[in-house]
Amino acid sequence: MRGLMQDWPLLIHKVIDFAAIEHGGRSVVSRSVEGPMHRTTYAEIRTRSVRLAKRLAREGIRPGDRVATLAVNTWRHLEAWYGITGAGAIYHTVNPRLFEDQIVYIVNHAEDRVVLVDLPFVPLLEKLAPRLPSLERYVVLTDGAHMPATSLRGAVPYEEWIAEADDDFRWVALDENDAAGLCYTSGTTGEPKGVLYSHRSNVLHAMMTIAPDAFGISTRDVIMPVVPLCHANSWSLAFACPMAGASMVMPGPRLDGPSVYDILETERVTMTAAVPTVWFSLLQHMEKTGGTLHHLKRVAIGGSACPPAVIETFERKYGVAVIHAWGMTEMSPVGSLCQIKPEIDTADYKQLLETKSTQGCAPFTVEWKITDDAGRRLPHDGKTFGRLKVRGVAVVRSYFRREDETILDEEGFFDTGDVATIDAHGYMRITDRSKDVIKSGGEWISSIELENLAVGHPDVAEAAVIGISHPKWDERPLLIVVPKSGREPDKDGVLEHLRPHIAKWWMPDDVVVVPEIPHTATGKILKTALRERFRDYRLPTA
Amino acid sequence: MRGLMQDWPLLIHKVIDFAAIEHGGRSVVSRSVEGPMHRTTYAEIRTRSVRLAKRLAREGIRPGDRVATLAVNTWRHLEAWYGITGAGAIYHTVNPRLFEDQIVYIVNHAEDRVVLVDLPFVPLLEKLAPRLPSLERYVVLTDGAHMPATSLRGAVPYEEWIAEADDDFRWVALDENDAAGLCYTSGTTGEPKGVLYSHRSNVLHAMMTIAPDAFGISTRDVIMPVVPLCHANSWSLAFACPMAGASMVMPGPRLDGPSVYDILETERVTMTAAVPTVWFSLLQHMEKTGGTLHHLKRVAIGGSACPPAVIETFERKYGVAVIHAWGMTEMSPVGSLCQIKPEIDTADYKQLLETKSTQGCAPFTVEWKITDDAGRRLPHDGKTFGRLKVRGVAVVRSYFRREDETILDEEGFFDTGDVATIDAHGYMRITDRSKDVIKSGGEWISSIELENLAVGHPDVAEAAVIGISHPKWDERPLLIVVPKSGREPDKDGVLEHLRPHIAKWWMPDDVVVVPEIPHTATGKILKTALRERFRDYRLPTA
Repeated sequence: MRGLMQDWPLLIHKVIDFAAIEHGGRSVVSRSVEGPMHRTTYAEIRTRSVRLAKRLAREGIRPGDRVATLAVNTWRHLEAWYGITGAGAIYHTVNPRLFEDQIVYIVNHAEDRVVLVDLPFVPLLEKLAPRLPSLERYVVLTDGAHMPATSLRGAVPYEEWIAEADDDFRWVALDENDAAGLCYTSGTTGEPKGVLYSHRSNVLHAMMTIAPDAFGISTRDVIMPVVPLCHANSWSLAFACPMAGASMVMPGPRLDGPSVYDILETERVTMTAAVPTVWFSLLQHMEKTGGTLHHLKRVAIGGSACPPAVIETFERKYGVAVIHAWGMTEMSPVGSLCQIKPEIDTADYKQLLETKSTQGCAPFTVEWKITDDAGRRLPHDGKTFGRLKVRGVAVVRSYFRREDETILDEEGFFDTGDVATIDAHGYMRITDRSKDVIKSGGEWISSIELENLAVGHPDVAEAAVIGISHPKWDERPLLIVVPKSGREPDKDGVLEHLRPHIAKWWMPDDVVVVPEIPHTATGKILKTALRERFRDYRLPTA
Repeated sequence: MRGLMQDWPLLIHKVIDFAAIEHGGRSVVSRSVEGPMHRTTYAEIRTRSVRLAKRLAREGIRPGDRVATLAVNTWRHLEAWYGITGAGAIYHTVNPRLFEDQIVYIVNHAEDRVVLVDLPFVPLLEKLAPRLPSLERYVVLTDGAHMPATSLRGAVPYEEWIAEADDDFRWVALDENDAAGLCYTSGTTGEPKGVLYSHRSNVLHAMMTIAPDAFGISTRDVIMPVVPLCHANSWSLAFACPMAGASMVMPGPRLDGPSVYDILETERVTMTAAVPTVWFSLLQHMEKTGGTLHHLKRVAIGGSACPPAVIETFERKYGVAVIHAWGMTEMSPVGSLCQIKPEIDTADYKQLLETKSTQGCAPFTVEWKITDDAGRRLPHDGKTFGRLKVRGVAVVRSYFRREDETILDEEGFFDTGDVATIDAHGYMRITDRSKDVIKSGGEWISSIELENLAVGHPDVAEAAVIGISHPKWDERPLLIVVPKSGREPDKDGVLEHLRPHIAKWWMPDDVVVVPEIPHTATGKILKTALRERFRDYRLPTA
């Protein structure tokens, strides 16, 4: 027997409709790409989204078509998401920092018909355009006055282009399971894979992130997503803020420490979110200038593990609560958030910090398990580590145009590729990527844990650990370190530094000092390249 | 094109599964019907719900069957909801305070097959049982030791009954749109009408209520729903608390001022919710004893308008934030919540109190409009009042077994039966019930506003205003007052008291003093009876 409640599909346009009606005057402030600060409201953003939707429809964009964005965080990018989905089309966020071949691959794979591009990325697009045959229309996210001379055929300035449409348009009628957004993962191996979000998954995910134990978003917040809209859905903030009626601040193209500090203070930001590297720069800047944070109350940090020292500095020195989070593009992206449950609360900050350094707990709508290689569930004892697998309302079922590939296990869980422990209170700690974990004599050694310890050595700037094949143990760890400028770390000194913190059999079999370590486009250590380079390396123990 | 996210239906059992896994040790404390305090956890509640589901299935209960509860708020009632819905059946909360004929009507209309009944209501059920032929099984919510001698044929004590099943049972597989709960509205006219909640509507509604600008529920909360589970879904708290991992306190059968005060303090409740009358008793009790609230941080008040004096006393005297809310059974029930938006925040408490006395703003998932009798939208200017109509994810589409009756307008909105204003900031104020509003010369006069003013007169204990037909104006207001004990209010004095606060044409045409005013089972003024009684009343102005 069916319930008798209304059919009210979870559609993205309802979020901006709601914000325009209930929080119409609330501000969205951006540092524009052109330079000056720009101020608008949710009501205006909705109106402009409607124009964009109408203009896209006139362009021939139909439900299900893909529209690419190659843009930083500004009000225009925000309204683009609502306009594109309101026309029934799919926003495809292209990360401009990807390798050129990757950009070419994903735009072609997605068959994007229109691209909205920010000024700084016009030269890149000009270069790639001959290889992007599906693109029919280039729209530069600026006005006529700032429109550059460009080789992009038929390129138009966004402002004049959407002004060709009025706001007399009804959002296209859709099913809540219709596709809304597309984001490709930039894996280190293989071709990028597209995650196709639905209206439903985006709306539910945003509802989840608003909760007090997630980002805790209210009308009294001024929220700045430093995390780009092109990076895993901006951690939902482009939906969650208007849904909760929070003000937004868009940092535009300048994400360096001084610029971030400046906008946090002048715009009285209360909550912000980004990967750790952004916060390294901010903290360094404040350390240098003696600046403090007068308005910021909390900062969400994810994308990669946040060092405990960063958490402690934010919390104890600047009075800003850190929400350590974890997720992935395939999870829309939020998978866990670290808030202190009452049963483990304590006045002992060292102990709290231990918990705050974990990736946190699963929110409602996310289920997880850890398993061994055979898929058997492992205990949640905080020690045993296994493959982390997830299931939920905003978790991927299959990749775009690879629907025939099975990526869920028989219980419907998706393998995150991470290796993690989960403790009795539900706190999860990523210990490694499953492809990076070192399998030594049937046991697993966490490369990340060794790396974190190694960078604690005073002479070490960066560290990477990879498995090297070993005749007896299958694999043994090799520690690769980059020295700090002017320092010369030696093998024995580095190993002695690790010794008190690890089991004896975790000790790397060798240490190699290199001038630099290769990185991915998004700043992660490129271990495939390291494994390639050290493929024939012979350990002294072998 | 469909999105490629997982199919993860929004089912009620996922809430208790989540709580058992992520917040398994979190406490649910109840004042039992038998007397002593009872302590359990979400993990135990889940296990017992599973047993109940299995036992119901063995009883022959199938998906879609209705199981009635006639019970106060305890852990058993809570687990009953999860057990019933986990078996695929529908919990039907029967309010024991309804008139006997209403109870007979709704149990027969619902065709309840099983009833779970608390000890205090066994005598009532014994009396009504001969008129309730659909009931096959009476389960008394107690253990064998407390089982009374009863004429209820085949009655069993709940504890022993569910102990006949183990917890090796899988929740019944369901569609998220399947019916989960049934609650009848106890209207003052006509037969009660059943609202049939779905799993989806209950889960989404709970997600909405958790948000910081709704009830703001977190793991650090200890939440006591004084509002009964049988009263409009306990305002979602039976779902929202386990979903957010908050501790729960169930007040059991004793809702008087001293009992509520005692449990708020001893169980360190941080948030609670109930209708105004509960709070009148609590505040009176504290006034008398000089007690203060050491743990309570916020109180949700709804069901009927909360007098500003109550809001002010909670906030200024006891430091407890009031969340003034409005809703109805047909809305699952939360329709609006009053939180202060930043643009109207001020240090002037008098001005804040003005806003806090409104019913507040619509949360995401609720849409509303006000219209005139012809269905035309009226402006949101805070002055114009019109019929309040709502649409949303947890709003009724049609009543149970009255599916052929159209209750939505052409835009899909449900007429709440309330008359309200909405101001430019989105704050809604109920000014009347649409059937009670007095239509004088084409304009509307709010009976409630006149009543609120009249009870401010020092000699008036209670007041009611009804429309009396008038040859020239169609209707004119008649003010009916009950004097305070030992006082004798006179017509001119009462009218003089109103004069400074109302437009001249709002002035009642007459005042009648009566010893008492009739009420509904839920304590509201029974205006139908008053209109009947004064049907032939001749106004002096007629």
